[in-house]
Amino acid sequence: MQGVMDQQEALKAAVGKDRLDRMFRPRSVAVVGASSSPAKIGGIPVDYLTSLGYAGRVIPINPGADTIQGLPAFPSLTAAPGPIDLAIVAVPAAMVEATLEDAIAAGVPALVVFSSGFAEIGAEGAAVQDRLAARAAAAGVRLLGPNCLGFMTVAERCHATFTPVLKLGQPEPGRVGIVSQSGAFGAYALVLAQRRGIGISHWITTGNEADLGFAECVEWLARDPGTDVIVGYMEGARDGDRLRAAFRACRDAGKPLVLAKVGRSEVGASAAASHTAALAGEDAVFDGVFRQYGVIRAESIEQVFDIAYAAAVSVLPRGLRAGLYTVSGGAGVLMADKAADCGLEVPPLNEATQDAVRALVPFAGTRNPLDITGQVVNAEGAFRQALGLMARDGSVDLVVSFLALTGQSPVMGPRIAEDLTHVRSTDPGIAQFAVTVPTEAFRRQLEAARIPVFEDPNRAVAAAAALAGFGQRRNAPPSGDMAIGPALDIPPSSTEPQALALLRDAGLPVTDFTLAQTAQEAGAAAERLGGPVVVKVVSADILHKTEAGGVRLNLTGARDTQAAAEAILASARAHAPDARIDGLLVAPMTRGVAEVVIGVQRDPAFGPVVMFGMGGVHVEALRDVTFRAAPIDEAEAMRMIREIRALRLLTAPRGAPPADLGALARLIARVSALAAANAAGLESLDLNPVIVGAEGKGCVIVDALLIGR
Amino acid sequence: MQGVMDQQEALKAAVGKDRLDRMFRPRSVAVVGASSSPAKIGGIPVDYLTSLGYAGRVIPINPGADTIQGLPAFPSLTAAPGPIDLAIVAVPAAMVEATLEDAIAAGVPALVVFSSGFAEIGAEGAAVQDRLAARAAAAGVRLLGPNCLGFMTVAERCHATFTPVLKLGQPEPGRVGIVSQSGAFGAYALVLAQRRGIGISHWITTGNEADLGFAECVEWLARDPGTDVIVGYMEGARDGDRLRAAFRACRDAGKPLVLAKVGRSEVGASAAASHTAALAGEDAVFDGVFRQYGVIRAESIEQVFDIAYAAAVSVLPRGLRAGLYTVSGGAGVLMADKAADCGLEVPPLNEATQDAVRALVPFAGTRNPLDITGQVVNAEGAFRQALGLMARDGSVDLVVSFLALTGQSPVMGPRIAEDLTHVRSTDPGIAQFAVTVPTEAFRRQLEAARIPVFEDPNRAVAAAAALAGFGQRRNAPPSGDMAIGPALDIPPSSTEPQALALLRDAGLPVTDFTLAQTAQEAGAAAERLGGPVVVKVVSADILHKTEAGGVRLNLTGARDTQAAAEAILASARAHAPDARIDGLLVAPMTRGVAEVVIGVQRDPAFGPVVMFGMGGVHVEALRDVTFRAAPIDEAEAMRMIREIRALRLLTAPRGAPPADLGALARLIARVSALAAANAAGLESLDLNPVIVGAEGKGCVIVDALLIGR
Repeated sequence: MQGVMDQQEALKAAVGKDRLDRMFRPRSVAVVGASSSPAKIGGIPVDYLTSLGYAGRVIPINPGADTIQGLPAFPSLTAAPGPIDLAIVAVPAAMVEATLEDAIAAGVPALVVFSSGFAEIGAEGAAVQDRLAARAAAAGVRLLGPNCLGFMTVAERCHATFTPVLKLGQPEPGRVGIVSQSGAFGAYALVLAQRRGIGISHWITTGNEADLGFAECVEWLARDPGTDVIVGYMEGARDGDRLRAAFRACRDAGKPLVLAKVGRSEVGASAAASHTAALAGEDAVFDGVFRQYGVIRAESIEQVFDIAYAAAVSVLPRGLRAGLYTVSGGAGVLMADKAADCGLEVPPLNEATQDAVRALVPFAGTRNPLDITGQVVNAEGAFRQALGLMARDGSVDLVVSFLALTGQSPVMGPRIAEDLTHVRSTDPGIAQFAVTVPTEAFRRQLEAARIPVFEDPNRAVAAAAALAGFGQRRNAPPSGDMAIGPALDIPPSSTEPQALALLRDAGLPVTDFTLAQTAQEAGAAAERLGGPVVVKVVSADILHKTEAGGVRLNLTGARDTQAAAEAILASARAHAPDARIDGLLVAPMTRGVAEVVIGVQRDPAFGPVVMFGMGGVHVEALRDVTFRAAPIDEAEAMRMIREIRALRLLTAPRGAPPADLGALARLIARVSALAAANAAGLESLDLNPVIVGAEGKGCVIVDALLIGR
Repeated sequence: MQGVMDQQEALKAAVGKDRLDRMFRPRSVAVVGASSSPAKIGGIPVDYLTSLGYAGRVIPINPGADTIQGLPAFPSLTAAPGPIDLAIVAVPAAMVEATLEDAIAAGVPALVVFSSGFAEIGAEGAAVQDRLAARAAAAGVRLLGPNCLGFMTVAERCHATFTPVLKLGQPEPGRVGIVSQSGAFGAYALVLAQRRGIGISHWITTGNEADLGFAECVEWLARDPGTDVIVGYMEGARDGDRLRAAFRACRDAGKPLVLAKVGRSEVGASAAASHTAALAGEDAVFDGVFRQYGVIRAESIEQVFDIAYAAAVSVLPRGLRAGLYTVSGGAGVLMADKAADCGLEVPPLNEATQDAVRALVPFAGTRNPLDITGQVVNAEGAFRQALGLMARDGSVDLVVSFLALTGQSPVMGPRIAEDLTHVRSTDPGIAQFAVTVPTEAFRRQLEAARIPVFEDPNRAVAAAAALAGFGQRRNAPPSGDMAIGPALDIPPSSTEPQALALLRDAGLPVTDFTLAQTAQEAGAAAERLGGPVVVKVVSADILHKTEAGGVRLNLTGARDTQAAAEAILASARAHAPDARIDGLLVAPMTRGVAEVVIGVQRDPAFGPVVMFGMGGVHVEALRDVTFRAAPIDEAEAMRMIREIRALRLLTAPRGAPPADLGALARLIARVSALAAANAAGLESLDLNPVIVGAEGKGCVIVDALLIGR
């Protein structure tokens, strides 16, 4: 099933890619609404395309001029000589539909629409935009925008944009692709990238996304041979499947995808919702899906480019184990703090390695951070040897070196650079990151050896950690077959015993419950179960059972249980005289080392998503929960478990052995499989609580709320 | 009491300041171990002092030379012409004690000791260092180092250091003072400051701190008229009182103190402990004390200087309410997210303001962020008017403006700069921060109007938030008289009822408990109390009462209670046959909306510190706790309460009204007063749990563990 879907997707992608290739690598570009003034929106792209080195044909379209900026102009696309790969549209909103018809008639396969006045101005504009999108789709024409800043294909100097940024200088060609849902932001990011010396392959702004969206642009870059690293700015997405396909494509291509996704905070999310036509969706769900596919989430534009720079220069670290190598003890401590913040491990070096370092440098701090002290930079050979010892220790996947100001030193700089590059060549599997204020020559030498150079130690560690996380995901054993199913017949509403029965029949571990119709039956059930039991009233009309006196715990034997059951019924009737009561649920009291919650809900973008968190206040008050798009396998479920802040309540519960995380991961994965198989019929599922036993003891669903649609 | 202490401190500080003035602003500097080679540790300071513009006398001391670098040299300090304000000591460790004697004999009041080979190499070196410190103290000589990089007083070009950094260029004089416990790190920070264009008043590295420590240097800068902002790098401190005095001095002088304190993480703390001779202390306690005194904690060197730059340029924001003004919706969302991370509020603008903005710019996002869209920069006047509307709305204390690339634009740049500075002049109470890639002229114009300029929006917001936090603390009403007391007679160990009685007698709200000697007495006590009670075994030998079957809840009436009490005694005896049992504690079952923990512990640096957190897993497993050095007032206690992550469990408990935070803050403050008054006799106090009632219902201590010393 999954395999077939993948093939279809691949086929679709191949066809789409061909059209997008013509858009993003056009051999001829028409500019509709071309102006003679290089300061106007219709004149800027003509200026850029003619003066900055684009080798293809440029065809100004303007019914009122014979020549535009020295080029012969034509009154319409149909009147212009073909073939035209791309039409840039820079006419008022009211003329865009006519331009599209002209483009279709002229056989132009791709349009970039700069014009604003569509969905961003309200319902009327949105309606025009929808017509535009439908017409383009029907005609097989691809459309970027409207209300976008266009794109650039840097190596080919194809600057199909009107951003004034290019007047400050052209971007350097390189292997980092940029996609931005915001034009202004994309332009700003481009300038910051230029200032960082980051080479760009493509720069794409998606505007209102009438047709071509953020996800499809990312996916195209994932397949683009000229792009190694993809960075994106996003505010939201409507089509979660498309986005996941893009994430998969990046992952499968081994290309780090670094996203600045805004709208994390309440104010931010509401600002994003009002600013963008796209539905923002719940940020925590996006966050979970990013983790699921190894997408690197950056908090700032600066961090986006820190990571992009590191990814473009460095080899991928194999894992999260960091060696911190420093000529200043203080910097070592600072980096250790930051490493912990970023989820890197800083394991102690082996004793033999530590002894060997001490033999070289008596007063070195040798555990990790390895502080070889400032003196060692003067001791010929010791720097290189100690660094080599750390690289070959076997306990680290990457090394971050704090070099103080040696990168500026005419004497020490070249030697230190030699030392670092030497260890890169002897230990190529160890990724290296350097921190210093470098000279240009120092920086170039290190980058040639695939060592990124940072001035701020924390930023170096954060970038290394992001790459290491991606590298670790790449190295994780591929997940086995992802189970989907079983498909269930889910009624719009279920009582608790109905929900539990459905889940039990689906093979999930459910408490050994009985539905009793009378208090006497409840007593009999308790006797049959033996040990202490819980009795709960069953009624779709009573939402808060405890408040209604509808729950009694720790009952033993037929007599006590029957009495309690009678009390429950009386109390429930008193609390809600009109409630329909469907009986009493009797189940054994279940003990474990922890209570957790597993949920399924429908996300507007991603469909069924599975949620995990600790029970009680951790879910609602503390929002210590994590999400994934269903389905996921057990390894992914285990990553969810390990993401929650309250993990210690499972791994080191007070006065109890560690919880059975394996069984819990299995259950989460099976719930996700069920959610995926029942996407059409399932509105939400809330397993609260699930009791997790000690290792080897499994886990049990003791309450369930199931809502169909 | 507090007043007297302050006076004494002030007097001591005044005397110390005079000596330190001679150290840090010497009119004459001797260099002991002066070398003719400007590359050697004893030659570098002579070179710097003679070639970089220092106006005082420079006196090389070297018994083997008549002249050093063109200056007459002398064989010893006593042989040199006085008065000598400062002696730089650059001789081998073995000769430092003799040099000190020579300095004392020559009447030199201050020494900077570069020499290494003291505490940092082990016990032997530490012993020599201790002798050195004791001798200096006895003779009234102040000593910076040993094993330090020295200091610089930039305006006077007094470069009493051997850091090679100065060969890359001298720092610009300015009003930011730097103190670093790490020399290498201090040098690195200095270069980053230079590259940021931050002007420096003093740069001081403290090395091994045999005499003069980090705290005293900070305090001297707090009183230095040439310094407005102080930044520091610290790893730990032994003398918490001294550190608090320094923090108070900064606060009282209104000078922001920005610290990079390393050792937050486990690995970091252990690395710091092994790297520095100073005791690191518990980082969470440092963190609490920083908050207590409005010290700004930065996470990276970069952030240190972001904040220092903002503080040196901007007026202080009056509070935490941020207006976000942007020409790009995406940047507005990004900044809103970051503002939430940093504890800034982003309140909606008043409706009237929003209407007025919409009248100017129909499609603007007006709530806050105020997104005036990219078009407005072309609409003459609208930018200034909308910014002014936000500044005058009354709901914000500061504005962060995202200007995209206008700072580079030859046309728009100057106009935008005029607009921003205009609003600074019409609304001088509103602090402004700008984000753009500026030209040098743009940046200078804004800085002259006290508007700091950042390239990265997140860094701008973070720096604004740090300053706003400091500004808010400055504007908070001064705390009333800080209560201390009462002094108690605390035995080394107490049973629970003894501890509760002591606290009750000290005036704290303690549960209405009775100590019963027999089960029958327990029954009688329950009857007297009326409603349901709890009974607990009282025994110093039974630590885990629940595990020993020593606790029974929810008992009502004499008979049931007596029976339960008998069961408790039997169970306790079975569990711990040798335990001495002191009776049974009977207390009413106390209900509230939340359970919290208040603790007191002794910190190696700060003495008695008070801790607050939610009860249960929040303290031990989740470490969601906060600390303060005792005593604190109620306002400070309220800030503690508001710092915990689980605050919602108090402000919005599930199915219950908000908790009585006022009563809780009062109790925390009173516990802190008690801790301060009993610093000598109190090892630790653990009130766990304290039951907090709904607003107006107060709170009650229901269990206490008290350990004396």
